[in-house]
Amino acid sequence: MNITIFNEGRDERRKPEVLEVYPNGIGGVLRDIVLEMEETNLLTIGCLYDEECGLTEDILEKTDVLIYWSHGGNHEFPDEIAKRVQNHVLRGMGFIVLHSAIGCKAFTSLMGTTCTFRYHHDDKEHVICCNPTHPIAQGVDDRFVLEVEETYGEFMDIPKPDDIIFIGWFSSGEVCRSGCTFTRGNGKIFFFQPGHETNPSFYHPQVRKIIQNACHWATPTRKLPKVSEYVAL
Amino acid sequence: MNITIFNEGRDERRKPEVLEVYPNGIGGVLRDIVLEMEETNLLTIGCLYDEECGLTEDILEKTDVLIYWSHGGNHEFPDEIAKRVQNHVLRGMGFIVLHSAIGCKAFTSLMGTTCTFRYHHDDKEHVICCNPTHPIAQGVDDRFVLEVEETYGEFMDIPKPDDIIFIGWFSSGEVCRSGCTFTRGNGKIFFFQPGHETNPSFYHPQVRKIIQNACHWATPTRKLPKVSEYVAL
Amino acid sequence: MNITIFNEGRDERRKPEVLEVYPNGIGGVLRDIVLEMEETNLLTIGCLYDEECGLTEDILEKTDVLIYWSHGGNHEFPDEIAKRVQNHVLRGMGFIVLHSAIGCKAFTSLMGTTCTFRYHHDDKEHVICCNPTHPIAQGVDDRFVLEVEETYGEFMDIPKPDDIIFIGWFSSGEVCRSGCTFTRGNGKIFFFQPGHETNPSFYHPQVRKIIQNACHWATPTRKLPKVSEYVAL
Amino acid sequence: MNITIFNEGRDERRKPEVLEVYPNGIGGVLRDIVLEMEETNLLTIGCLYDEECGLTEDILEKTDVLIYWSHGGNHEFPDEIAKRVQNHVLRGMGFIVLHSAIGCKAFTSLMGTTCTFRYHHDDKEHVICCNPTHPIAQGVDDRFVLEVEETYGEFMDIPKPDDIIFIGWFSSGEVCRSGCTFTRGNGKIFFFQPGHETNPSFYHPQVRKIIQNACHWATPTRKLPKVSEYVAL
Repeated sequence: MNITIFNEGRDERRKPEVLEVYPNGIGGVLRDIVLEMEETNLLTIGCLYDEECGLTEDILEKTDVLIYWSHGGNHEFPDEIAKRVQNHVLRGMGFIVLHSAIGCKAFTSLMGTTCTFRYHHDDKEHVICCNPTHPIAQGVDDRFVLEVEETYGEFMDIPKPDDIIFIGWFSSGEVCRSGCTFTRGNGKIFFFQPGHETNPSFYHPQVRKIIQNACHWATPTRKLPKVSEYVAL
Repeated sequence: MNITIFNEGRDERRKPEVLEVYPNGIGGVLRDIVLEMEETNLLTIGCLYDEECGLTEDILEKTDVLIYWSHGGNHEFPDEIAKRVQNHVLRGMGFIVLHSAIGCKAFTSLMGTTCTFRYHHDDKEHVICCNPTHPIAQGVDDRFVLEVEETYGEFMDIPKPDDIIFIGWFSSGEVCRSGCTFTRGNGKIFFFQPGHETNPSFYHPQVRKIIQNACHWATPTRKLPKVSEYVAL
Repeated sequence: MNITIFNEGRDERRKPEVLEVYPNGIGGVLRDIVLEMEETNLLTIGCLYDEECGLTEDILEKTDVLIYWSHGGNHEFPDEIAKRVQNHVLRGMGFIVLHSAIGCKAFTSLMGTTCTFRYHHDDKEHVICCNPTHPIAQGVDDRFVLEVEETYGEFMDIPKPDDIIFIGWFSSGEVCRSGCTFTRGNGKIFFFQPGHETNPSFYHPQVRKIIQNACHWATPTRKLPKVSEYVAL
Repeated sequence: MNITIFNEGRDERRKPEVLEVYPNGIGGVLRDIVLEMEETNLLTIGCLYDEECGLTEDILEKTDVLIYWSHGGNHEFPDEIAKRVQNHVLRGMGFIVLHSAIGCKAFTSLMGTTCTFRYHHDDKEHVICCNPTHPIAQGVDDRFVLEVEETYGEFMDIPKPDDIIFIGWFSSGEVCRSGCTFTRGNGKIFFFQPGHETNPSFYHPQVRKIIQNACHWATPTRKLPKVSEYVAL
C-alpha cells in the first residue's frame, strides 16, 4: 500500500502552540500513524509550500491512499492541483479527509456541496460507533473520549454518506456525523472529523486505529488509466 | 387522512405518575396531537386490553396512518395482530413508531433486527436536525431541547434507515439516530425516539409538529388490495 | 410554483431532424409539459445563445424548479453561470436534469463525478419502476415502452442516488439507472435519462407525468438567502 | 473461513431434469464452488430432509458464512430453524441467498417484506455491474451473459439495499436488482438472483467468482455471543 500524506503546513508556521502539541507538525504525527502499519510505503509528505504541493502527477499515479489535513489555506490551494487530486480519486485513489480538510477544494469538488458546519473550540467529544460491522470500525471501541476537541455541529452540508460509522457527541450540546464514507467514481473516501491542530487527538490510539483501518478500506481494488469519458457501445 | 392510534395502555394502569403527566393517558395526548391537524379523521384509539387490541381488519383497512406507542407489553401483544399490522404496512399504511414501540412486534418484524439499544432515564436531550429538507423537518427548528427524556444510545440495532432526520444528544454523553424513516413494501415508516411515559415530551410543540409532519409524509399514495404474492409475467 | 426551462438550443440549429420531431424545439415541448400543470408559472425559457443563457440571478432567485436539457454545448456553457445554477440548487432550487444534460457543468459539479456512461442510438427502451411509492412514480405505470430512444448503459459514473425510481431496459442488451434522485444542500435533484433530441419521448404521456411529478417533488420547502458558510456556534 | 451450505434438495427429488444439469444436485455444484476457494473449510451441506435441516446450533455456531439455495419447500421449512438462522445472521454470520431462496423464511424475516417479484422461465440474461468498486465485483467482468435463466422482474419487494452491485437484463424485456447487499445486526447478507434449478448458471465462471467474492465479503469481523437484548447504560 503506497500512501501519500498532504499536510498543509500553514498552522505550524503561524501558531506556536501547534508545535507544542505536535513537535514534528501534523505531517509528522500522521507519518507516525502510517509507519505503524505493516506493509505500507510512505511515498512523500507534501505541504502547501512545496512545488505542486508535493502532489505531482507522478506521486499521485503511484499513490494508493492520500491522507489529507488542511485548514486555513484551503482557499489558497491551487485549483489545478485540487482538480488533479479529484481526478485521481475518481480513477481509484483512496482519500482520507481529516478534520478541517473537509473544506479543501478536492473534497468539496467531489461532494458538490459547501461542506460547511457549525463549530467552536475546546469541547469534550465522545466518538460513538453506529456501524459496528464496517471495516473502518474493526478493533475500535464502541465509544471513546477525546478530552479536548473542536466541536463540529449539524447541519453539516454534505451529501448523504454511503455509511455513517461514527457520530460525535460534544459537551456543548452538539452532534455531528463524525466518520462518513463516500464513493465517487472508483475512489473510496473517508471523512473523519477529529484532529484540531492544537488538540492531541492524533496521539489517541483509537483515532490512529481508525485512520489505519480507513487506509486499508480505501485501498483501490482497481484504478482506471485515466478519468473516464463518454463511451460508445 | 384517516388516522388510528394504538396506545398500549399498560403503563397508565401500573404507574400512577404517568397519569400525573398525561391525565388522559398517552392515548389522550396523542389524540390531541392528531386533532390539531386539519382534514384528519381519528378512527379509533386501540389498547392492549381491547378486543383485537382495537386493530381489527376493518379499522386497519380504513387507516391511512397508524400512530403506535407501546412499552412493557410489547411481548404480550398477539402475534396475529402484529402480523396484521405488518401486512397493512406492506400494503401501504403509514406507520409512526414512537419511543419504546421500537420493540413492538410489528416494527421488529418489519425491520428484521432486534431493535435493541442502550438506555437509561432522566437525561436532558437535544433533538438536532441533520436533514433539513426532509418533509418531516418542515417548520421544525434546527434543534430543540427536551429537559427530561429517556436516553436511547447507540448501537441501536436497526437496518440502515432510508433517511436519518434527527440525531439525539443526551447530557449523559450518548447519541442516537432519533428520527429515522424506512420504506417496507408500499408502507412508509417513521421511528421517533422521544416519548417516555413519565416525561412531558408529547406536549412539546416541536415534537407535536414532527409527529404531524410524519403523518402527512406517511399517508399512502397507493394501497395494495392485499399483500403481494409471486406474480408470473 | 415558478418554473424556468433551460434548453440549450444548439441541436435545433444544427440538426434539421430535431425540428421535424419537435417543431417548436425541445424548449417548446418542455413548455407544453409545464403548462399542463395547474398552478405553475413559467418564468422563462433560456438557451445557450441568450444573454447569461437566460439564467440571470434575478430569474434564478425567483425559480422554484429549473428544468434543464442540453447536449453538445455542455462544454461551451459559461463556468460562472454553471456555478450560479449550482449555488441556487444548494440554496434550495429544484433541478430536473434531462437526458444528455447529465453532462452539463452544473450537474457534474453537484455530483463530483464524470457522469459518463455507455451509449448508442436507436434502441427500444422499457422504463421500469423499482420504487413504486416514491412521489415521482405516482400515477405512473409500472412499466412503459419508448419505441425509439438512445441507450444509456452502465457503468454510469454517478454517486449513489438517494433513490433509484426507474431502471431502463434497452433492446440492445443494456440497462441503466434511468430515474434517480439526489439531495445536495437544500436542493432536490432528479435525473431522468429519456429525451434524445430526435426521438419523440417528450410526447409520451408517462414521460410527461414523470417530469411533472418531479417538479412537484423538487419544489423547495425552504430556500436559504445565500449559500451557507462556516458558522460559529 | 468456515462455510455451511444449505441446499433444499426437494427439486432434485421431483424434477429429473435438475440432475441432468447438476448430477450431484445443487448442493454438489455449490460445494465445488466453495472448494475452489483457498483457506476455506466446508462444514456441512444440509437439506430439508436432514435432522434440523443440517443447521444445528452447533454447526451454525461454527459457521462464518451460510450459502443457501431453496425453492418450492420454502414454506415447509421449520419456523424454529429459520429463526435460528436469522439469529445467527444478526449475531454476525454471513448469509448468501441464491435465487429462489429469496422466499425462504430466514431471508424474508430479515427483510420484513414479501420478497415477491415477477417471473417466468427460459430467458436470456445479461448480468451488468453498476458498482464496480464493491468487493463482490472484484475480478468480475463489467457484464456477462447467461444464455438461459429465469427472469426475475421488478417490482421486487425488498427493502432498499445497502448496495446494488448487479442489475439483470432479460431478453423478455424485464430488469431486476440482481445482486444486492444488506446489513442486519452484525450480519452481512448478499442476495444474488441467478441460479434456476434447471439452468447451468452455477457452472458459469463469473457466477462462481461472484459467490466466492461474496463469501469473503460476508465473513464476520466479529460475532456476538448471543442476540443482543436491551442494555441499560
